[in-house]
Amino acid sequence: MELKSVGLHEKVWRDYFRKKTNWNRKMKFLLFTFVGAHLLALNSGKAIYRNDNSQRTFEEIREEIARYGDVAKAIIDLAVYGKAQNRSYERLALLVDTVGSRLSGSKSLEKAIQIMYQNLKEDGLENVHLEPVKIPHWERGEESAVMLEPRMQKMAILGLGSSIGTPPEGITAEVLVVTSFDELQRRAPEARGKIVVYNQPYANYSTTVKYRTQGAVEAAKVGAVASLIRSVASFSIYSPHTGIQEYQDGVPQIPTACITVEDAEMMSRMVSRGNRIVIQLKMGAKNYPDVDSFNTVAEIIGSKYPEQVVLVSGHLDSWDVGQGAMDDGGGAFISWEALSLIQDLGLHPKRTLRLVLWTAEEQGGVGALQYYQLHKANISNYSLVMESDAGTFLPSGLQFTGSDKARAIMKEVMRLLQPINVTQVFGAGDGTDINFWIQAGVPGASLLDDLYKYFSFHHSHGDTMTAMDPKQMNAAAAVWAVVSYVVADMEEMLPRS
Amino acid sequence: MELKSVGLHEKVWRDYFRKKTNWNRKMKFLLFTFVGAHLLALNSGKAIYRNDNSQRTFEEIREEIARYGDVAKAIIDLAVYGKAQNRSYERLALLVDTVGSRLSGSKSLEKAIQIMYQNLKEDGLENVHLEPVKIPHWERGEESAVMLEPRMQKMAILGLGSSIGTPPEGITAEVLVVTSFDELQRRAPEARGKIVVYNQPYANYSTTVKYRTQGAVEAAKVGAVASLIRSVASFSIYSPHTGIQEYQDGVPQIPTACITVEDAEMMSRMVSRGNRIVIQLKMGAKNYPDVDSFNTVAEIIGSKYPEQVVLVSGHLDSWDVGQGAMDDGGGAFISWEALSLIQDLGLHPKRTLRLVLWTAEEQGGVGALQYYQLHKANISNYSLVMESDAGTFLPSGLQFTGSDKARAIMKEVMRLLQPINVTQVFGAGDGTDINFWIQAGVPGASLLDDLYKYFSFHHSHGDTMTAMDPKQMNAAAAVWAVVSYVVADMEEMLPRS
Ligand SMILES: [Zn+2]
Ligand SMILES: [Zn+2]
Repeated sequence: MELKSVGLHEKVWRDYFRKKTNWNRKMKFLLFTFVGAHLLALNSGKAIYRNDNSQRTFEEIREEIARYGDVAKAIIDLAVYGKAQNRSYERLALLVDTVGSRLSGSKSLEKAIQIMYQNLKEDGLENVHLEPVKIPHWERGEESAVMLEPRMQKMAILGLGSSIGTPPEGITAEVLVVTSFDELQRRAPEARGKIVVYNQPYANYSTTVKYRTQGAVEAAKVGAVASLIRSVASFSIYSPHTGIQEYQDGVPQIPTACITVEDAEMMSRMVSRGNRIVIQLKMGAKNYPDVDSFNTVAEIIGSKYPEQVVLVSGHLDSWDVGQGAMDDGGGAFISWEALSLIQDLGLHPKRTLRLVLWTAEEQGGVGALQYYQLHKANISNYSLVMESDAGTFLPSGLQFTGSDKARAIMKEVMRLLQPINVTQVFGAGDGTDINFWIQAGVPGASLLDDLYKYFSFHHSHGDTMTAMDPKQMNAAAAVWAVVSYVVADMEEMLPRS
Repeated sequence: MELKSVGLHEKVWRDYFRKKTNWNRKMKFLLFTFVGAHLLALNSGKAIYRNDNSQRTFEEIREEIARYGDVAKAIIDLAVYGKAQNRSYERLALLVDTVGSRLSGSKSLEKAIQIMYQNLKEDGLENVHLEPVKIPHWERGEESAVMLEPRMQKMAILGLGSSIGTPPEGITAEVLVVTSFDELQRRAPEARGKIVVYNQPYANYSTTVKYRTQGAVEAAKVGAVASLIRSVASFSIYSPHTGIQEYQDGVPQIPTACITVEDAEMMSRMVSRGNRIVIQLKMGAKNYPDVDSFNTVAEIIGSKYPEQVVLVSGHLDSWDVGQGAMDDGGGAFISWEALSLIQDLGLHPKRTLRLVLWTAEEQGGVGALQYYQLHKANISNYSLVMESDAGTFLPSGLQFTGSDKARAIMKEVMRLLQPINVTQVFGAGDGTDINFWIQAGVPGASLLDDLYKYFSFHHSHGDTMTAMDPKQMNAAAAVWAVVSYVVADMEEMLPRS
């Protein structure tokens, strides 16, 4: 889709909201007594910080980070054992039970954005505002697939995002089952006029997802009339897992949907026995013109370097199945929780902590790309971009992309999470929405957890609050808050390559 | 339902089929060279077996069982590493891919029974026959549930077996959510005219399943117009798990269905926030008159005590969702496999090994009860009844009910499974179909495996071949074959209490 740069300037918003900010002073007072001693101890050490652009020794940086031990403990205590425990879970449950799933272009997404704007204002955060973007509007409509031969069976499907529909009478055709694009190429002459079924094995998400994104295009190139892909999922209880697919200019657009792992495997077995399979596919899917939406922003404005930014984020949109609780309600709400925790403790990081709740991530980082285009002029002031979009289960650690020196710093920061035993730093920080910044050289971090569990529920009807665990969200929020706060408060920005 | 004793006598069938048996001699010859030395060694020890009804010392029995070490190894080699590996999986896949699910009263169940009759004949087993029984005929028809308040959402449901339907326009009513029968009693005045939703937590199957079987009756007693139960499942990807429910004489019959764990939990959260929930429930379910069906029987007739029986079994019927591959295709097919393995090795147990594939287990052991009534006169000749109906994943061991002495014998028998490290004997052999015999004092055994996995797929659309693992089925079949063969071949029947 076409992306348009929108005309807002972040400085205007920040200055405007800074004056109007409504601090929750009562909460801060209560919590000050709770963590008072720790914070006093920390503040007394501030005098030795420097910001002279000289190269400090790593030992000095290590010592600086170690002095955040008490504040990290205070954050952890508040998030995991204190008054804030289960808060991100409860807040998330209320939103997703109220509005349900939040597909790009839907009324429920825009309702969720308005609710979040209110939530963030009421939470006392600064510079709460909405940044307008244009996003895709696709609707699946009614859809069904029925196997007619070798025996009659209704099949569970979910049309893939951006797919066209079928004619009203559906498409009835014989099936060609392949397990890879290579096999499709070898058997190209057999594909004409057929429905191509991809029964690709699940290796991992990034490897296997190309069958979802490119399956229709590759099938259309060899003359297929529709394509069905085995859901990209680590586990299934006859669960279709949807997601975006991408047509290519110059290649005919054919309808495409996901089927269950179970049906893909069954059809593979059937054809291996010589069965002829015929399916009737009906899809009412339709693409509509782009609609208005918003990235949702809130801040704790930096006390010393307000123009410098640590960005924490998740996306507010979801697929139109389940509740979008895990993908990416969890990421969005631990990101909000990070700011809430820091605010509750009366902490004032030197740089601005910016929360962004992206819109239309599932359509390919549509909101985030427009944010990047709008804000990239300020890229030198982005110390770290963070996104949680791979689950908020018990974290295994942090994924990070950045220079060796920055990685060494992040390892020191993660040592602060020793009290909850989440200290590892893995390769390759990742997130559709932050990758624009990472590719431009900004250090990036994401949360790593149980991906087998994540891809069991991902983009399925099962992405609901039942998949979420409040205690695990507490731990994820603690990691998120400690990392974002310490990086935002350290004397120097993270070094780049 | 009414049960009618049917007029067949097993002796007539056995004598008739014994003459006609078509041994697969070629297979036996090939396998004899494979395990020849082991069997010769075993046979040479036979002279010391006794059947004098005197009490032998346990040491003598232990020695007798230990002499089966080589034959147990031969069975394991054939099932797990040899030519028979994956056979039960492949046979099962062919059946369930061909006929699909097999609900009591359905055409597909009767087709499956006819196919199995042919399969068992072609496998060269003896006394292959069908024993007529009458079974329930219930159909779910079209069904749907839509939450109208506090927001519109389609809900996944599955009507419970034997439930009546709703009027064509459906039942639209407010919801009362309870988490237990106790809570329902306390809140009885609130239930009148409502749809009762049970959000009972999952403790274990036998504890929790009473909400499925009794939920409608208890709700009707306090004036509810329908009831929806949280699926009795260990895990869910928005998966409804159906099963039988039981109306009571004198209590109004109300429609009842299962909903997902996800929706039950969501509705609990909603009412805890003060939301009023309204659901429209439509069910086309209907009960029809009983129909004719069959228990499917095949044997390896005992070489020395043909009138004595070791019964191995699983049920051939399933629910009308998924493929009934796990429940109980796996149990049925490892039971067949046990006889195939023993036959392939040219083994001739002293007692008759009888395979029974039950019909209409899911409606409450309907086929098995009629079998018991027909055959119970011969109960003193049943040494052991075995049923696998809790999964054929990697076995943890054998569940067993019997006298202490019989249990001690079973522990010795299970030591023969040391090569695949499945040696444990647990309490309480169990199976809807064999419990009639167990309660009458016959020793009973069942297979125990990963029940968390089992109840993830149980009675859901996800009960397909994808849930099955050929290697795990090999191991399960090896256990099944070794236990049934050794108990059938030991000089004495298992001692009763
Ligand atoms: Zn996501
Ligand atoms: Zn069963």
